Amino acid sequence: MIQNKPAEVGMSIQDVDTPALIIDLDAFEHNLNLMSKSVANLGIAHRPHAKTHKSPVIARKQIAVGAVGQCCQKVSEAEVLVAGGVDDVLISNQVVGSQKLERLAGLACQATIGVCVDNQENVEAVNVAASKFGCRINVLVEIDIGAGRCGVAPGMPAVKLAEAIERMSNLKFGGLQAYQGRAQHIRGFSERKIAIEKASKYVLKTIELLKKAGINCPLVTGGGTGTYQFEAGTGVWDEIQAGSYCFMDADYGLNLTENGDYFNTFQNSLFVLSTIMSAPTKDRAVLDAGHKASAIDSGLPRVVDLPDVEFVGASDEHGTLALGRNAPAVSLGQKIKLIPGHCDPTVNLHDWYVGVRENVVETMWPVAARGATF
Amino acid sequence: MIQNKPAEVGMSIQDVDTPALIIDLDAFEHNLNLMSKSVANLGIAHRPHAKTHKSPVIARKQIAVGAVGQCCQKVSEAEVLVAGGVDDVLISNQVVGSQKLERLAGLACQATIGVCVDNQENVEAVNVAASKFGCRINVLVEIDIGAGRCGVAPGMPAVKLAEAIERMSNLKFGGLQAYQGRAQHIRGFSERKIAIEKASKYVLKTIELLKKAGINCPLVTGGGTGTYQFEAGTGVWDEIQAGSYCFMDADYGLNLTENGDYFNTFQNSLFVLSTIMSAPTKDRAVLDAGHKASAIDSGLPRVVDLPDVEFVGASDEHGTLALGRNAPAVSLGQKIKLIPGHCDPTVNLHDWYVGVRENVVETMWPVAARGATF
Repeated sequence: MIQNKPAEVGMSIQDVDTPALIIDLDAFEHNLNLMSKSVANLGIAHRPHAKTHKSPVIARKQIAVGAVGQCCQKVSEAEVLVAGGVDDVLISNQVVGSQKLERLAGLACQATIGVCVDNQENVEAVNVAASKFGCRINVLVEIDIGAGRCGVAPGMPAVKLAEAIERMSNLKFGGLQAYQGRAQHIRGFSERKIAIEKASKYVLKTIELLKKAGINCPLVTGGGTGTYQFEAGTGVWDEIQAGSYCFMDADYGLNLTENGDYFNTFQNSLFVLSTIMSAPTKDRAVLDAGHKASAIDSGLPRVVDLPDVEFVGASDEHGTLALGRNAPAVSLGQKIKLIPGHCDPTVNLHDWYVGVRENVVETMWPVAARGATF
Repeated sequence: MIQNKPAEVGMSIQDVDTPALIIDLDAFEHNLNLMSKSVANLGIAHRPHAKTHKSPVIARKQIAVGAVGQCCQKVSEAEVLVAGGVDDVLISNQVVGSQKLERLAGLACQATIGVCVDNQENVEAVNVAASKFGCRINVLVEIDIGAGRCGVAPGMPAVKLAEAIERMSNLKFGGLQAYQGRAQHIRGFSERKIAIEKASKYVLKTIELLKKAGINCPLVTGGGTGTYQFEAGTGVWDEIQAGSYCFMDADYGLNLTENGDYFNTFQNSLFVLSTIMSAPTKDRAVLDAGHKASAIDSGLPRVVDLPDVEFVGASDEHGTLALGRNAPAVSLGQKIKLIPGHCDPTVNLHDWYVGVRENVVETMWPVAARGATF
């Protein structure tokens, strides 16, 4: 409920109250432009995932440099995006239950809306809602290409679902959702590539069987920041959904490139700014940012620009730094920049992005879909 | 920013939209009453920690059954509590930086406010802010009694800080903050008890040295749900800060009692209600609740009332259930109750508590200090 602003435009970054979610605007714009060129070179469309940023401001900036629309995971996220000026949204996820489906159908009266299915009953339920609102919803069949989460098996189960969609009065078969989530953080370059090449065979097989059944597959969409070049390379995907590229995080930073370097093609543009609130011993300092400011599900945050200083533990409101022998002296009140372990759930903890350029606050963007989990 | 309500009063729990944060009101009231009796029997005061619930509604209910006030970790939490009718708040944590200290001092003009220190410079900074506002702030010295986080060393370092506080024009030495956070989840009963008995010696030594320096220690406060009986048993603490007792969680459920049973004196009253949104295989179902609905920093959530069904993995918006051989049949749209791994950061992900009694929604309480991290 509380939406205190940690900063005002014009402030120095040193005066921003903490913990605060900082965007380095130069790095962020670098990432947007680089991805725009990269997908143009690869000859593939880009529909960035808004589950990462939860912001119509960022969505519109992505679309301005070429993205075809947005994806998201929840109806409530789609509502925020459409209200914020995004007119083409794919919910790359299943939507279950009449409350959510009616909100989905209402939204499809206002914008181009797609949704994924992996169950026949659900196809019928989506159609009931679409019919009530007299709208048309693009329905994609999600196939499990190795992630082991949602999705029907590739091949005939997918064909049957596509046929079911085509039979419905208010649905249109929109293609295949094919996302190999597990492959995103496979560290080795060739192992990651192999995972996607393997996944592509499942997609191809499904497309062939659809064709045999007389169904054209209008779109294959999927792929993330860790693998999008591989999806594009197979020639099987039409659209990639990479979202984290705009921010990056400590976890993606551990992936390896073809040369064995750490994956830093895209720059870290997202930081949690924190303050040293206790420095009780020579080898320990404590930050005002813990679990409630930086998500640790994919590892602890990384300290920026301080040699021999390591973030070694988090509790709810505290982060503990180990100060090594070669660490610089630190002082109470000192601001420390952290690279979050995982960008998506970290963003979801904050109400505001503080946009900073050359250490001055240039803009404040609400994390408008923060908490939009349903 | 979004504050969609997942439920309305009068609904059946089956109609609550998900993911939603549910309070079982009977279990919650049981916990409040049990703690009220327990601390009365132990002859100790109780100042529950609002970092758990972030709700003035719950704070007032705790005070109505005998609590002396609330603690919290952040000035922004204290602001929400005071605005919600709580007139005695201890920030059991350091507050650093003039922005936060001025807000602290402003608040001390409106209510009885305490804060902790572990640094001489910080004592002076608190006094500058208090002087500016002409208010008086209770300042407690935090000592590190084994948690290895904030706090000065027990003994003379604490005495020196207390002397510094006493020299300040607008501060009052409020006593010792002595919290052994690491002991809360030591599983074995006697190991947990020994950790607190050891900690109590540090406190006693500090009180003695304060006395020698001519300083009376008006209060020793600390202790959590895992250890409060031990703090009370030592006779050293005057006040305990247990907060999780009102909700409990999967992590506390793994502590052992004196008889070797799991710690279930307090009941699980907090649940994340979720929905099966995909059931792609016989041995797997997928819930609509992942990292953004239930914090996993202290382990995965536990599934309620479904034998041989285990929550085995979370991603941002999904929770994966493994369905064992003896699992009951599950269906798309089925509502599943989860006990969060860790209550505090889970509460911080939600905007609303849905208060349920006998499966009917009786009340909706805002998580008013959700996101209050600064």
